[in-house]
Amino acid sequence: MKVDILTLFPEMFKGVFESSILKRAQEVGAFQYRLIDFRDYTTDKHNKVDDYPYGGGAGMVLKPQPIFDAVEEVVSKEEHKPRVILLCPQGEPFTQQKAEELAKEEHLIMICGHYEGYDERIREHLVTDEVSIGDYVLTGGELGAMVITDSVIRLQPEVLGNDQSATHDSFSTRLLEHPHYTRPNDFRGMKVPDILTSGHHQKIEEWRTYQSLKRTYQRRPDLIKVDHLSEKELKMLEEIKAEDVATDK
Amino acid sequence: MKVDILTLFPEMFKGVFESSILKRAQEVGAFQYRLIDFRDYTTDKHNKVDDYPYGGGAGMVLKPQPIFDAVEEVVSKEEHKPRVILLCPQGEPFTQQKAEELAKEEHLIMICGHYEGYDERIREHLVTDEVSIGDYVLTGGELGAMVITDSVIRLQPEVLGNDQSATHDSFSTRLLEHPHYTRPNDFRGMKVPDILTSGHHQKIEEWRTYQSLKRTYQRRPDLIKVDHLSEKELKMLEEIKAEDVATDK
Repeated sequence: MKVDILTLFPEMFKGVFESSILKRAQEVGAFQYRLIDFRDYTTDKHNKVDDYPYGGGAGMVLKPQPIFDAVEEVVSKEEHKPRVILLCPQGEPFTQQKAEELAKEEHLIMICGHYEGYDERIREHLVTDEVSIGDYVLTGGELGAMVITDSVIRLQPEVLGNDQSATHDSFSTRLLEHPHYTRPNDFRGMKVPDILTSGHHQKIEEWRTYQSLKRTYQRRPDLIKVDHLSEKELKMLEEIKAEDVATDK
Repeated sequence: MKVDILTLFPEMFKGVFESSILKRAQEVGAFQYRLIDFRDYTTDKHNKVDDYPYGGGAGMVLKPQPIFDAVEEVVSKEEHKPRVILLCPQGEPFTQQKAEELAKEEHLIMICGHYEGYDERIREHLVTDEVSIGDYVLTGGELGAMVITDSVIRLQPEVLGNDQSATHDSFSTRLLEHPHYTRPNDFRGMKVPDILTSGHHQKIEEWRTYQSLKRTYQRRPDLIKVDHLSEKELKMLEEIKAEDVATDK
């Protein structure tokens, strides 16, 4: 997958894009990126990318011209029209489902604003997707572009060594993960639950499913979709709810 | 504020922490960070940070010992006990409210896992907060730690030049921002709404409030808290709903 990032801070990306999975993805040919400083596309003599807002108010607004020109130059060299993603707090909340959708594309362009707002004409006439990585305020779109890139590239079939890893993660299974333990069995008096060292594979699986449901019920009940649960899981969920009511008394 | 980050990939952080606002925050003394590779705290001869899961299954689990020892060394040198934040998909969803809460702390420790799960004893006995930046799967906690750091540091009073900037952002006001426009008035035939060049400040403010409500209603109705709205805003919201119904017909 090709990813082109429009940013005023290209120096922010290297540490993230040249480490770990994203580095490996480049080595296996599953990820190529370009960092495009859209200040290079300004046509005024002061290389200004922003200007005062019409109607007054605090803060500056990113001008349409440099961003339109930069995106259009990238698009003009492509056979297929890439998705153009604007990182912004007003965007659709980014989810694993959106990551899976974007992972099928061959080419993404991401636009990162910084401090300022975007001129509305960029939203209306240039981008295909407006995305927000969460309900918090960040200095710019750069971290959002890194988040989206990481989540999308790791879904490329060549990238994760173990095929199971991607599908078993939280949000892929739609439930939070069960607790994990590793050696030592006794760490400063804190012990691993006996069931996990029992060797009863079926009981271990049941314990894990139960813990996963319980954690999701307690922390993120919004993630539980009852019609995605098996009959056995529904029964477990009833037990968990009953236990919860009993503890409250 | 001091931020200590436990990670196996310290090289990922520099580009982000040494640019833009986070760089400026260090210059004004509002931000200091340390990157701690917890592999340096392993006590076994192969410097292993992870091990197989008890009970079997795919994937490795981060061992408790290196992470406990690294956190405890940091904490032992402090007068006040810092918050210890675990980045993980099972955590509490990060929000602007959480950013505001963490921004009041003097010192944060963040633990970034990578690929693997954490040994449950880390969650139960070492950390004060488990946080997730969104419902998507990332390769590690590093991007989450950068997101939290950026959102929290920019709330430090010395950091943003213009005091208004932090409070006027989306999620601080709890509504999505209204559209912004800047010059030129006519960009390739796409024009700025007349109201914004009218000079009627009160009408401009009303237009902006209306647009902000409308955008939030259309895109993120979950963010509208009716009891946070003024009477005027409630009336606007009724208009927006009526308009929406009319358009649907």
